[in-house]
Amino acid sequence: MTENTAGPSVLPVAPSRGRLRPLGLDEVRITGGFWAGRRRTNATATLDHCRDWMERVGWIGNFRAVFEGRIGRDRRGREFADSDVYKLLEAMAWQSGQGAGPSLDAQIAELTETIAAAQEPDGYLNTAFGHPGRQPRYSDLEWGHELYCYGHLIQAGVAQARARGEGELTKIARRAADHVCATFGPGGIEGVCGHPEIETALVELARATGEQRYLDQAALFVDRRGHGTLADIEFGRAYYQDDLPVRQATVLRGHAVRALYLAAGAVDVAVETGDDALLAAVVRQWEATVARRTHLTGGMGSHHRDESFGDDFVLPPDRAYAETCAGVASVMLSWRLLLATGEPRFADLAERTLFNLVATSPSDDGRAFFYANTLHRRRRGAVPPADADSPRAESSLRAPWFAVSCCPTNVARTLALLPAYLATADGHGIQLHQYADAELSAGGVALRVRTDYPSDGRVTVRIDRSPDHPWTLSLRVPSWTEGATAWLVDADGTRRAVPPGTATVTRIFRPGDEIRLDLPMAPRWIAPDPRIDAVRGTVAVQRGPLVYCAESADLPGGREVDAVRVDTAGEPQDGPEDTVVAPGELAASQEPRDAAWPYRPLDRAFAPAAERTGIVLVPYHSWAGRGPSTMRVWLPTTQPRTTPPGR
Amino acid sequence: MTENTAGPSVLPVAPSRGRLRPLGLDEVRITGGFWAGRRRTNATATLDHCRDWMERVGWIGNFRAVFEGRIGRDRRGREFADSDVYKLLEAMAWQSGQGAGPSLDAQIAELTETIAAAQEPDGYLNTAFGHPGRQPRYSDLEWGHELYCYGHLIQAGVAQARARGEGELTKIARRAADHVCATFGPGGIEGVCGHPEIETALVELARATGEQRYLDQAALFVDRRGHGTLADIEFGRAYYQDDLPVRQATVLRGHAVRALYLAAGAVDVAVETGDDALLAAVVRQWEATVARRTHLTGGMGSHHRDESFGDDFVLPPDRAYAETCAGVASVMLSWRLLLATGEPRFADLAERTLFNLVATSPSDDGRAFFYANTLHRRRRGAVPPADADSPRAESSLRAPWFAVSCCPTNVARTLALLPAYLATADGHGIQLHQYADAELSAGGVALRVRTDYPSDGRVTVRIDRSPDHPWTLSLRVPSWTEGATAWLVDADGTRRAVPPGTATVTRIFRPGDEIRLDLPMAPRWIAPDPRIDAVRGTVAVQRGPLVYCAESADLPGGREVDAVRVDTAGEPQDGPEDTVVAPGELAASQEPRDAAWPYRPLDRAFAPAAERTGIVLVPYHSWAGRGPSTMRVWLPTTQPRTTPPGR
Repeated sequence: MTENTAGPSVLPVAPSRGRLRPLGLDEVRITGGFWAGRRRTNATATLDHCRDWMERVGWIGNFRAVFEGRIGRDRRGREFADSDVYKLLEAMAWQSGQGAGPSLDAQIAELTETIAAAQEPDGYLNTAFGHPGRQPRYSDLEWGHELYCYGHLIQAGVAQARARGEGELTKIARRAADHVCATFGPGGIEGVCGHPEIETALVELARATGEQRYLDQAALFVDRRGHGTLADIEFGRAYYQDDLPVRQATVLRGHAVRALYLAAGAVDVAVETGDDALLAAVVRQWEATVARRTHLTGGMGSHHRDESFGDDFVLPPDRAYAETCAGVASVMLSWRLLLATGEPRFADLAERTLFNLVATSPSDDGRAFFYANTLHRRRRGAVPPADADSPRAESSLRAPWFAVSCCPTNVARTLALLPAYLATADGHGIQLHQYADAELSAGGVALRVRTDYPSDGRVTVRIDRSPDHPWTLSLRVPSWTEGATAWLVDADGTRRAVPPGTATVTRIFRPGDEIRLDLPMAPRWIAPDPRIDAVRGTVAVQRGPLVYCAESADLPGGREVDAVRVDTAGEPQDGPEDTVVAPGELAASQEPRDAAWPYRPLDRAFAPAAERTGIVLVPYHSWAGRGPSTMRVWLPTTQPRTTPPGR
Repeated sequence: MTENTAGPSVLPVAPSRGRLRPLGLDEVRITGGFWAGRRRTNATATLDHCRDWMERVGWIGNFRAVFEGRIGRDRRGREFADSDVYKLLEAMAWQSGQGAGPSLDAQIAELTETIAAAQEPDGYLNTAFGHPGRQPRYSDLEWGHELYCYGHLIQAGVAQARARGEGELTKIARRAADHVCATFGPGGIEGVCGHPEIETALVELARATGEQRYLDQAALFVDRRGHGTLADIEFGRAYYQDDLPVRQATVLRGHAVRALYLAAGAVDVAVETGDDALLAAVVRQWEATVARRTHLTGGMGSHHRDESFGDDFVLPPDRAYAETCAGVASVMLSWRLLLATGEPRFADLAERTLFNLVATSPSDDGRAFFYANTLHRRRRGAVPPADADSPRAESSLRAPWFAVSCCPTNVARTLALLPAYLATADGHGIQLHQYADAELSAGGVALRVRTDYPSDGRVTVRIDRSPDHPWTLSLRVPSWTEGATAWLVDADGTRRAVPPGTATVTRIFRPGDEIRLDLPMAPRWIAPDPRIDAVRGTVAVQRGPLVYCAESADLPGGREVDAVRVDTAGEPQDGPEDTVVAPGELAASQEPRDAAWPYRPLDRAFAPAAERTGIVLVPYHSWAGRGPSTMRVWLPTTQPRTTPPGR
């Protein structure tokens, strides 16, 4: 079978070592189901939407203003606005590798030309710094984001190289990377960027070009961080992970996107340099972060104040920041750890995050986005303006654009490269990690995956082509099946229960053979760790990988979600069209009435009038599609069975 | 008896009308008990501490730097640093009115001279603006705080006028106020300050001087706010209450201290102009804020991000901001509403806030303070540096000073004027609102109040002097007695149960007569309104007006407070030395062990091992006196009786 050596595939991440070999966008295609429509919308609407907005708000124009020498007075947007042009280009490049046609190629060429004209002869490229009337180059490493911007530029250049072969964008990226090595390498500025991102980009560029110096520079940046070269700001140096060296940290902390991009870069460095200690350090941080600092949706980040992780078990649903970009970054990290270790737990978190966070951000039409992904919305918000920036985290509706608009382009690039996250290969065979209706063709094997997942739990893998020696088909059995039973049906019809982890079939496959995985899709109550104070006395509902929520649009009489109580003496049931109906009760509209003081002696405790009813729940990713609403994932219980029985 | 017309007393607030007449610092003295020691520490330690720090950090030096023409390069501290010098002077002035001696007078004179030298000929006075090398006057009304600083200057000047007669400080304040009227009056700048405070100060100056124009200017500022003259910042105009006119608002919102100072100023304007509609608007806002946006401690403010109120019922204990200054401002507002209406509910909130918030901020030695007053501390913090500024809201210990250090001087002025909050007079007699060991002498009546409140519930009022006609002694029966029974014992020994509200005795009193109030002091479980999501499944314990908490210092085996569960099938009991012992259980030290993922199917819910024991609770105001600790007010229950029985 195929060894884990990167081939010529269109690979979003291409480690030279690791337990598993990724498959490229030319080897895996999504053909239908949950993701196919979203990817189509991304290709046909979101890319244009992002480009149009960045023309409108002047972020693309900034590059022209540099070329024309008027950036000093004309620059628009925040200091990191360049990066969103690059992330859009990365998305376009992956899309162009999947046959998007000449119009997209022309757009890429035009944007590339605009950017190229703003690059200095020495490779420096940034519209916010280093020009007349602007601050000098590298005068504000804490907040300037210059290296962060290069990181996204380089990722776009790598995407082009892999999708279509080295082109002009790749050349710009290489010039920028050479400039970074010259400026921040040994003997240069002994600093790091306030926002990690350059690290993973430089490793990827080293992989794409074979140039060792990019890897060396990435390793230097990873090792340099945590030594307090950045200022001790109000949020503390933990905000940008400059409080502790990566190797010493035990958990992710500070600004969530920064922490996750850095961790992804550290994995890339560890894999390429064979640095097992560094890899182990990141795995340890991932474990602690997942066990103590992650929302049920996979969302990361608990504080609005600094977009940061909270302390252990500080996971308030109503203040969940769970930034879309942190979800994207978490999937990037999990994917790298999966490739490095082969362990299904990383694919488990990626699945949860893709379905409940990345899929939640974009609207059905691909032209509006959540920046923050709260798990509890108490007030119906205003309708965001169609033609102006929106605040990042304030609305109960998706917004077309933000003053800080990192999330739309991050969703765009993730959807564009999504098929690459589905499967891998190794010396033993093929591994399926994520389930979607798809076709796979790699290393002499061709597969057809048929499924309506996550609506339905049946996944059928038909072998269309196979070598005539035995090999192993591995299927991830999601961790969410814990306590229920998943079944694997072999090509000969034998059926066995498979526990969470990896189920394998090793045989000589014949074309037409079918392997089937039946996942248990009954909706289930989910209880939180009792140390998560913010959700005490509540339960959530999950069906397969999907987290559900109550939304005011489904409640009678104009009620808001604070009227909902669920009764865990019963069980939630499947409802029509992917809804779930949970047994429970609804408080009357104005109950409880206001007390003068909202705290009472326990023997006079508040007792709102309520009526028993079934509560309709919808997939969390679909909320806010029907106008301003209130919503909650964690549902208060009438019988608080979250306290273990018999205690 | 005495009519409600302001006499010559030493009065922190002196309305010319209203239901009740305040009594001055020359009419009420605190002689022992809970507050006496704190007031002594304030006078002998805190005032010096604040002055020393403001010399050290250069905030007093700023005034010298203005005089010496070097403020452009030498200014220290934030833009509002002047205000803390003024608040300290206000505290000193009230203290000097209670016989503090020549040393304090000399300090006041010296500080006043320093300030006077920095005042411009036209009355302008600010060290941050309007000087060479600094921004121009009034160029940043959103954040500049110039009018806010005048407000505190004027309050200091009024305190001097009332405590010792008009002096140099009063003259500086009048010049500043005249400048404000000239600059912001009709035909002047049509703006308001980003931080309300000038409003209440100008009304008080009008009261102290009889100058109508100060009142007119205050009324103008109150009416001008809410029309969007300030910029629409990231936090929205609600941050500084410029989103809605005061008369239209239905609840306090935005930055808590700003909202409360503005409300206090609006009450002052309403009372002096007989504007009942404006008064009613503030009462309505107070009601909604108390019913839906106030922590059990009386603390206000739910968000760290902008130090603001949250939405209705958003009261997370671990992110309770509950700034000390908001507590001070809340007491200021409640006191004004009490004087205007005579309704005991305002004294109820003031009591709660004084014992559980204002008393919590200062350390026993009066040289360290809480800025934010969380209701739940999860991690033991570091010991704050003794010789450097501390972050505002990060530690589990009180800190000596902050970069924004509004709270220490606000505590100082409140403790200095505290006796004035105890009692009032009206045409019918004397009203006791707060209970402390005290002496009162006003309008032909002399009283002696003996009590160990709030350790003990017995309050004995002995009549030492009385006119020989009937009059009414009114005693507030606190709202926290709801569901228990308070008893009033008349001078003739008759005893009757008195419900929450006001208990009165009307008779011809003779010297030596004793009236007794017996308040029910058994500790009680307190349940929250079920809409406060953040404390679902928990209860608190209150004993009299004191809120209690669990603190790690009282737990065996180095446990943290997340090990505590209480069992509401039993009742909390009095423990030694004002502690309470609650029935409950303690989880073993490392229980529950980390799961890989902190959410589980309900039928496999987390069940930490625990042992039954009594949980020692201490008064919340006393926490963090024994080194870094963890603490929580809201205690998870083993039997979640917060859900009403029979539901």
